[in-house]
Formats: sequence, structure tokens, C-alpha cells
Amino acid sequence: MLCSRAMSIETLIYAMALGGVAVNAAAGVLEAGRKPFDLFGMVVVALAAALGGGSLRDVLLDRTVFWIADQIYLLTAVLAGLVTFALVRVVRLPPRLFLLPDAVGLALFTVSGTQAALAMDAPWLVASMMGVITGVFGGIVRDVLCNEVPLVFTGELYATASWLGALLLVGLVGGGVSPGWSALAAAALVLVLRLAAIRFRWRLPVFTARP
Amino acid sequence: MLCSRAMSIETLIYAMALGGVAVNAAAGVLEAGRKPFDLFGMVVVALAAALGGGSLRDVLLDRTVFWIADQIYLLTAVLAGLVTFALVRVVRLPPRLFLLPDAVGLALFTVSGTQAALAMDAPWLVASMMGVITGVFGGIVRDVLCNEVPLVFTGELYATASWLGALLLVGLVGGGVSPGWSALAAAALVLVLRLAAIRFRWRLPVFTARP
Amino acid sequence: MLCSRAMSIETLIYAMALGGVAVNAAAGVLEAGRKPFDLFGMVVVALAAALGGGSLRDVLLDRTVFWIADQIYLLTAVLAGLVTFALVRVVRLPPRLFLLPDAVGLALFTVSGTQAALAMDAPWLVASMMGVITGVFGGIVRDVLCNEVPLVFTGELYATASWLGALLLVGLVGGGVSPGWSALAAAALVLVLRLAAIRFRWRLPVFTARP
Repeated sequence: MLCSRAMSIETLIYAMALGGVAVNAAAGVLEAGRKPFDLFGMVVVALAAALGGGSLRDVLLDRTVFWIADQIYLLTAVLAGLVTFALVRVVRLPPRLFLLPDAVGLALFTVSGTQAALAMDAPWLVASMMGVITGVFGGIVRDVLCNEVPLVFTGELYATASWLGALLLVGLVGGGVSPGWSALAAAALVLVLRLAAIRFRWRLPVFTARP
Repeated sequence: MLCSRAMSIETLIYAMALGGVAVNAAAGVLEAGRKPFDLFGMVVVALAAALGGGSLRDVLLDRTVFWIADQIYLLTAVLAGLVTFALVRVVRLPPRLFLLPDAVGLALFTVSGTQAALAMDAPWLVASMMGVITGVFGGIVRDVLCNEVPLVFTGELYATASWLGALLLVGLVGGGVSPGWSALAAAALVLVLRLAAIRFRWRLPVFTARP
Repeated sequence: MLCSRAMSIETLIYAMALGGVAVNAAAGVLEAGRKPFDLFGMVVVALAAALGGGSLRDVLLDRTVFWIADQIYLLTAVLAGLVTFALVRVVRLPPRLFLLPDAVGLALFTVSGTQAALAMDAPWLVASMMGVITGVFGGIVRDVLCNEVPLVFTGELYATASWLGALLLVGLVGGGVSPGWSALAAAALVLVLRLAAIRFRWRLPVFTARP
């Protein structure tokens, strides 16, 4: 019983991570579609968006990089990128469509990044930062490769949503809540905050230094 | 006999890696020469172009970074950058000249990157990706540092040539062909594909998402 | 006696590293203040500027990343970024003000980066390069995130000052001078060279390839 319970949480976390990879790859293709990149450029941007955050997390934590340890992630990212790419050629998509998979990916990556750091006994601030890094770094690389100012620095609440979710996860796990429920609650918080921020145009104040 | 054979293959691989570092550093200087960078900026772009791909490969595979383990690579990159730099000041060079050393570097790096991953028993997809990363990442960093959209995303077949060569190498080694001949065949394939792509303007289709 | 001597050198080095983190975070905010970034963007640029160089050094040397091993660095960077940020909102600051903390940060990071490499018995060229990487990489990431050509490639002597200081440190330590005095001399050399370069407009020659 305990074993199957642990099993299902493992499976849930694995599915969430795979889902995050897929939707971030899709969001990468949808974003890169505005640039005259060729098919390879598309795939690279999809891979960078899908795997960049987790790769940086694993390199910083000195873990085996997740998509080298398990080729399924790499295959998932490539396939999700190609499928999105084929869809985009056939169907006329509204320009802001990539915001939804991007928000789901942010939620899933924040949770899996924070969990990975907690599993290595990282202290709370580092653990929550790893969640944010996993959640947002892929998108930053995606935008740098597209030669644009990272979207995440200027738009509606994004990393802030990720960070609040990561802090909730750290707090719940620290408070003894089961990993599965903690993960679900944290992912839901990130997703709701991000979607509400887009809907109601919640932004952090924008500051410029006085000249 | 066997020993000297193994020796010569080791030596060949080492020479190919050093050659790749030198020509990529040269290509970096030739590319950066279009920007108003100072001597240091030139050297950094040369080092990033020459060592960036292999560094990322080694960090991802958790190997000791090759130019830290063996200072010769670092010296080679700096010297090749400075020599190219001095040449550029004296001789009028045709603008597309850097394409040839760049193609040679792509071939050599693809082979050495794939070999390094195979030596660590990486599965086939990861091994071929490591060849591509080693081959193209330096050029991507070079272009990002120059604040341009990476050339590799928009021009004639580039990473595709690298990937096909890496797959050939993985297949030949897996099929029992000697490492030396496999490496030569794979490097030749990458070089021929890349040069033919430049000559005949082979490109991957360029896609843009519908608005 | 010997113990307290060693203690004070340890403490000095730690204080220099913390100081470097704080002033680089401040310089990051002052630089990013020219862009319409939101509060999170500011903090990310501050963190990248403050922690980027040391993180790359630690990843390349395969050490535990310094701000993961010791959360104080991360807290210092966030706090220094926020304090600078609050100051900038209240006080009218001259545009070139960030050049002074940036120069102090360059000196401190060069020394701490070279020391870290020497402590791992890196050879002289690699050790001095690690000092330069620690000193300048944060600023390069900062400028790439701001979508600008890295300042360090085009302005007054910067990395050159860092490299000469790193070489002095390697030479002094190799010549038997105490680590504390070596560090002070090297940091002073970097700072004096950088400030003199700004004052007297010392630049490396700028080269462009002939068309």
C-alpha cells in the first residue's frame, strides 16, 4: 500500500516533468515561429525552452542532467516541438495561444525544480530559487536566442508567480504535508496566479533609474 | 603493433580536436571582425567559439572540462585567435573566407564531441546530440555575444550536417568499424555536406507561424 | 597565533567575496535601470551580474557552486540589489556612478576567482583565466540579458586589468608571498588599472576586419 502510494507520487512527478517539457517545447516553437528560423533553429529553440531550465538546475546542483540520465525527456521535447510545428503550418493560431501551455509549463517546472532541490536537502531559499530557475530559465534562453529582451523581465507576473508557488511547496513539505498534495497545491497556485496576471494585467512596478 | 595502432588513433583524435579548436578560434575572429570589438573582445569571442561547445558538452556530461584538464587547448585557441587577428590586419580577406575553417571546425568538433559521449556509454540519441552541441554551440555563443541572431538558425544546412555525421559515427562504431575510420568517415560526411550546402544553397525550409 | 593569522586571511577573503557580490549586484541594478525591466527583471540582472562569474567558475572547476554551498551570498546579492534599487528611486544618481562599484567588484572577483582555482592546483594560465571569468562573466551575462553588446568588449581596459591582476596574484603566490598580501596587491592593481583606464581613456586597439 505504502509502496504503491509512493509509486503513484513518483509517477505523478514524472508525468508532470514530462508534461512540462512537452508544453515548454511547444511554447518555444510558437514563440520562435515569429522569426525566420529554419527547422533546426526551431528545434534548438524548442529544446532550449524545454530543457534549459532543468539543465541549469542540474548543473548547479551537480546532479546528472535529467535528459542525459533519461533519454525520454529529449525525445519528448523533440517530438512535442515537431508536432507543434506541423500544427502551426496547418491551423491558423491566435497569436497569444502560446501563453496557456507556457503557463502550464511554468507551473510544472517550478514544482519539479523545487522538488529536485529539496531532495538534495538544499536550504529553503536555494530550493525556491531552483524552482524559479527551472521554471523561467528556459524562456530566458529562448528569448536570448531570438535576440529579444527576455519576455519574463517586462510582462505580466511570471517569475513572481513561480517563486510564490515554490515557497508554498517548500512551506507545505516543511510543514509535513505529503509531497503529492504539496506539489498539486503549488502547481495550482502558480497556474492560477499566472493566468490571473495575464487576464487582469497584473504587473510588477517597472522602474527606470533617473537620468 | 596493436599498441602503436591505438596510439595513432589517440593521436589522430587529439590532433583533430586541436585542429577544431584552432579553426573555430580563427572563424570567431573573422566573424567578430565585423564588430567594433577591442583586442580582448576578439579573444573572448575566439575562445567562446573555440571552447564553448566542448565546455558545454563536458559540463553536461559531468566530465572534467577539456581545456582545464589540458592547458594546450586554451593556448591553441588564444594563439590561433591572435595569429588570425594579425593576418586580418595585413591581408585583405574575402568576406566569406571564414566559412571554410568554420566547416572544418564543425566536422572535427562533431566527431570529437560524439566520441567523448560514446566513451561515457551515452545512448545513441544523447551521443549524437553531444556531437551537435560540441559542433554548433560555440558558434551560437559567438553570435549571441555579437548581439546577432545565431547564423546557424537561418543559413545553409549546418547543424543538420553535424547531426547526420554524428549519427553515421554512432552507427559505424556500433557496427564494429574501427574508431579511426569511423571518425574519418563521419568528419568527411559533415565537411562534404556543409560545403555542398554552401555551394548549392541547400537550406532547411524556413517556417513562420501564421499571424 | 598561526591559527588566528590563517583565520583572519580566511575572513578577509570571505569579506572580499561578499563585498564583490554586493557591489556587482548594485552595478547590475544601476545598469539594468536604463531598461524598462520590472522588479523581477532587475533582481535577475543583479543576481546574474553578482553570481554569474563565480557560478561559471565553479561549474567549470566542478566545485560546489558557492552560493548553493553558502546561502549568505544569495541573500547578499538580493539585498544589495533591492537596496540599490530603493536608493535609485529616491536619489538622482550621475549616469557613470556604477563604474566605481563595478571596478571594486572586478578587483574582488578577480582575486577570489584566481584563489579558488589555485586552491584546486590549476595551472597558471587556467588559474588566471578563472580570475578573469569570475571578474567579467557576470557583466557579460548582464549585458546579454539587457540585449546589448557586452560593455567589456568595447570600452576602457577592463578584462586586461583583471588578467594582469590575476597574473600578479599567481606570480606572488608562486613566489612564496603570503596569500593575504598577494590578494591585497592583486586587488589593488586591478582597481588602480581599471580606474586609471576610465580616467585617462586607456583602451585596447579596436580592430575591424577589412571588407
